[in-house]
Amino acid sequence: MSTDLGSLQFSRSITMPDWFQNDYKSFQDSDFSSVESRMRFVLELSRLNIVHQTGGPFSAAIFSQDSHLLISVGVNRVVPQTCSLAHGEVMALLLAQERLATHDLAAPGLPPMEMVINAQPCIQCYGAIIWSGIRHVVFAASGNDVESLTGFDEGPIPPDWEQQWARRGITVQQGVLRDEACTIIAGYRDSGAPVYNASSNVWTGHQAPAR
Amino acid sequence: MSTDLGSLQFSRSITMPDWFQNDYKSFQDSDFSSVESRMRFVLELSRLNIVHQTGGPFSAAIFSQDSHLLISVGVNRVVPQTCSLAHGEVMALLLAQERLATHDLAAPGLPPMEMVINAQPCIQCYGAIIWSGIRHVVFAASGNDVESLTGFDEGPIPPDWEQQWARRGITVQQGVLRDEACTIIAGYRDSGAPVYNASSNVWTGHQAPAR
Repeated sequence: MSTDLGSLQFSRSITMPDWFQNDYKSFQDSDFSSVESRMRFVLELSRLNIVHQTGGPFSAAIFSQDSHLLISVGVNRVVPQTCSLAHGEVMALLLAQERLATHDLAAPGLPPMEMVINAQPCIQCYGAIIWSGIRHVVFAASGNDVESLTGFDEGPIPPDWEQQWARRGITVQQGVLRDEACTIIAGYRDSGAPVYNASSNVWTGHQAPAR
Repeated sequence: MSTDLGSLQFSRSITMPDWFQNDYKSFQDSDFSSVESRMRFVLELSRLNIVHQTGGPFSAAIFSQDSHLLISVGVNRVVPQTCSLAHGEVMALLLAQERLATHDLAAPGLPPMEMVINAQPCIQCYGAIIWSGIRHVVFAASGNDVESLTGFDEGPIPPDWEQQWARRGITVQQGVLRDEACTIIAGYRDSGAPVYNASSNVWTGHQAPAR
């Protein structure tokens, strides 16, 4: 076998891009009282992630639902971090649970948590949100927007996805600043940056996504 | 607010338990040529994860499909690592992609990869496998087994989950050493260890799971 398969690994770390670590103080003092202001922040993260070429055009942030305190942020890190799991939502969840030292963002004593995302979660993140303790989700672009704009496959989201979240205590608000989100995502496509579905050799995302 | 919400995080690391790091050399020389031998190894990981109280009763390993070389292992680390994402499958994917330095386990030059799991993936891991480049999945216990034995919620797996994997190039073999897997999972339940669904306050897993 020509490829070097290395040796067994026991741990790994995942990091946000340097630009966010350098700039976060300017974000942290923003007024996040309206849902549009929170989404505008998330859209700026997706735009910056494209500009800095530090991952795909997806981003998420977690806020406490009552005080709108910024708990964590995540941008897509799949290609730079060689990690297919590192979607914006996953990054935000990993970092929120690290910060709060719990696997359950709905643990007793914590305020209810909201996740704001620039686009509808894919099948992986749809499931990850269920286990995370997030209680409210806001997104901008729909899964169909993402698939038609970029060719990214969103996966077989169940047709009753919203009810399945609801029965597990998760509410959702869709379409907040959708046009702005779509413009940024289309800009990623136009930049020629990678659409990195691992299954791209067998899957043609534009045709009949199962939704 | 009484809870200390800490400060913004930029990175985190996730690790396998010490017992695995200490013992892996004894596993690494095993004969993995039959699917039962690979599953037996994975079941032993789930058993040891319960014995050592280092996570939930779930485990996975990734092998090259042609040579049966062990590429990575994962055990559930949700509670000890305060990370709702840290299912056995996610751990194995994180560590395989770290080892091979790619987000795509089906990248050119790599042999096709198989994931062997002690139980059917939940909705999060079902999706994560799609994006990972894994080409073949083997599991022992079914999702219904897990839900009826433990009360863990598996989430809204799409009814046509197997076809949805197939159209993305992922094949599956079910029920390998299923009874042995169920016995170990039932032992976890009987130990009184946590069934840690973040949504356990609203979801009663035994009733009418949507499958």
